[in-house]
Amino acid sequence: MQFAQRLQHCETSAIRELFKLLGKPGIISFAGGFPDPGLFDVDGLRAASVDALAHWPGAALQYGATEGFGPLKEQIALYSANKSAPLQEQDFIVTTGSQQALDLIGKCLITPGDKVIVEGPTFLATIQCFRLYGAEVISAPIDEQGVQVDALEQLICEHQPKLVYLIPTFGNPSGAMLSLERRKRVLELAAQYQVLVVEDDPYGDLYFDAPPPPSLLALSKDVPGSRDWLAHCGSLSKILSPGLRLGWLVGPPALLANAVMCKQFSDANTSTYAQATAAAYLQSNRLPQAVTQVRKVYAERAACMAEQLRTQLGDAVSFVQPGGGMFFWVRLTGAHGGERDATAFSQRAVEQLVAFVPGAPFFAENPDASCFRMSFATSDLERIAEGIARMARAL
Amino acid sequence: MQFAQRLQHCETSAIRELFKLLGKPGIISFAGGFPDPGLFDVDGLRAASVDALAHWPGAALQYGATEGFGPLKEQIALYSANKSAPLQEQDFIVTTGSQQALDLIGKCLITPGDKVIVEGPTFLATIQCFRLYGAEVISAPIDEQGVQVDALEQLICEHQPKLVYLIPTFGNPSGAMLSLERRKRVLELAAQYQVLVVEDDPYGDLYFDAPPPPSLLALSKDVPGSRDWLAHCGSLSKILSPGLRLGWLVGPPALLANAVMCKQFSDANTSTYAQATAAAYLQSNRLPQAVTQVRKVYAERAACMAEQLRTQLGDAVSFVQPGGGMFFWVRLTGAHGGERDATAFSQRAVEQLVAFVPGAPFFAENPDASCFRMSFATSDLERIAEGIARMARAL
Repeated sequence: MQFAQRLQHCETSAIRELFKLLGKPGIISFAGGFPDPGLFDVDGLRAASVDALAHWPGAALQYGATEGFGPLKEQIALYSANKSAPLQEQDFIVTTGSQQALDLIGKCLITPGDKVIVEGPTFLATIQCFRLYGAEVISAPIDEQGVQVDALEQLICEHQPKLVYLIPTFGNPSGAMLSLERRKRVLELAAQYQVLVVEDDPYGDLYFDAPPPPSLLALSKDVPGSRDWLAHCGSLSKILSPGLRLGWLVGPPALLANAVMCKQFSDANTSTYAQATAAAYLQSNRLPQAVTQVRKVYAERAACMAEQLRTQLGDAVSFVQPGGGMFFWVRLTGAHGGERDATAFSQRAVEQLVAFVPGAPFFAENPDASCFRMSFATSDLERIAEGIARMARAL
Repeated sequence: MQFAQRLQHCETSAIRELFKLLGKPGIISFAGGFPDPGLFDVDGLRAASVDALAHWPGAALQYGATEGFGPLKEQIALYSANKSAPLQEQDFIVTTGSQQALDLIGKCLITPGDKVIVEGPTFLATIQCFRLYGAEVISAPIDEQGVQVDALEQLICEHQPKLVYLIPTFGNPSGAMLSLERRKRVLELAAQYQVLVVEDDPYGDLYFDAPPPPSLLALSKDVPGSRDWLAHCGSLSKILSPGLRLGWLVGPPALLANAVMCKQFSDANTSTYAQATAAAYLQSNRLPQAVTQVRKVYAERAACMAEQLRTQLGDAVSFVQPGGGMFFWVRLTGAHGGERDATAFSQRAVEQLVAFVPGAPFFAENPDASCFRMSFATSDLERIAEGIARMARAL
């Protein structure tokens, strides 16, 4: 029972219990990781679904290629080219959300006992996904400029990992942004040590002011040999709609070939109906305007959250204001003998009808119990202020 | 590289090469396993997609519960109740096609070296899916009444398999139908030997005249203890649209709990957009009429295929005329010193611009090289007659 046994270690009971409490009437939740459904371009997607069934009535409802629906792949290639990372059709496959890209990477590459390196903290479902395949997950330290590359190099040398998983741009939960210099260094490490670097990039478009540095994928053309050791996970979930469940995986040909084989027996193909709708939507060229609107609203909410945390919680907390994405990563400073345990704080906060996620489960090892994650994506300014007032009472 | 190594054994190069040839201009193909896209209820699904975005504009485009979208689960429960198998919400989960149900069963239950029993022949992707998880796949013999239950019992005793996988109704590729008596016996064996029986049931609604006997799921209430050892995979692919990628998995609570955990890290949830569209479609009550139409057309095509095989190929072939589903399973008799090798025959057939699938890869062991599979689902009567005329020339 290899998987069943490992599943028991995947239980994130603290978080599951917390999410059950979110049904409490009147609660203000900063705990979720969902985009704001009020910002979905429902009209555009409705038109796209009608268009898709008009243009491709057979193909949109039929089985499709495991690699992805051609017209969507064309649109994803254009989207990527606009971000300085041109793609050919054979460079990537469509996946059922980027979660499936991670699952396929795990399935294709990880043998029980293999080591993988992730950021500490990182996306919880990645840790669990890789652990399900029997990986030993090791944490590399990060700061506000993302993963610390010297420490990463040392860990690579020490552990010879099967892969390194990073969210370089507006990390979840850290909100951190890997600097341009470090991005280049990460690519050099990939090429030098011949270790696969997996770049997960769901938030790159959600910047507030200045765009982030180019993705590792875009930069790989400037670092000789690095493209052979780079995989990149893209997603429409945070910029268009998670309900479509559409992501993509860029990677070396051998990895993609194995991923296609595994995907054939995992779900045969990603919903062609969802793919055709997304293709028609992207063809309609409404995405840039929709994303601009998301950026604007999230920027206001992030600014408000920063302001309210500063004024209402003062030096009880510290944080780096994110330049995009959906999350604040907040540390309890314990100033003036105050609370330093984020789990205890979150329990008292729920009593005050406000929720966030204690940070410990986001660490594969050496959890920092003083941190917690807050999402500003789904709360308007009034609820952000009121929620943080409740947090102040809970402190 | 556990999966990567096993992948090499999954290569079904003969079939892959065959499918490449299907692009040949003018070819008539009986090789596919796809439903006829001309029978998709495009109008009904267009209306459903508009309805879904009107009723659930947020939920249809947002992340959803890993277990499935509530309104779709209600409709699936009704659909199942109409087939004498009432379901409660907690009895099943929605999956990304029934392929994902099989994948989750494999992931949750199979440890490398475990044995599983399947029909010989059976659905190719099931053999490969289970082998990817390291299973040793054993074949139980079948006849026109489905799996031979005495032989099955013997194999269960001999091998103590982790599970038994059956397509009891209009099997792929066999077209066979498990008799009522044998269905009950299979359920008794499940309970007696405490071995999980997995019923894959994508074709049960596609009967031509008389409906098939009740599913194992429906019958399990009459066989004490059997429900605890039964999983059931349902699908909208063959009755509505494969492009939605919607299936479901009924099973014992412990299996479902593990499957939900695995699914969380496989694709988080099945496309809520596809689920909401299907829910709205099923609510519109158009499915019975659409399925009636599919049945009628497929029945005509199956009758035509049987007639043409008899008149044009005569005693060179033998087959049992299926009472539903999508496939004929045809044996080369070698009468009058004629061809008995289906692979050689299929190669000559492609030269005559007609294609079907040689049967050997459908066997987990002891392949029968004289059989091949023909689908009548996507060819009209004229093409069926012409295709079989070409087969006669190739003989």
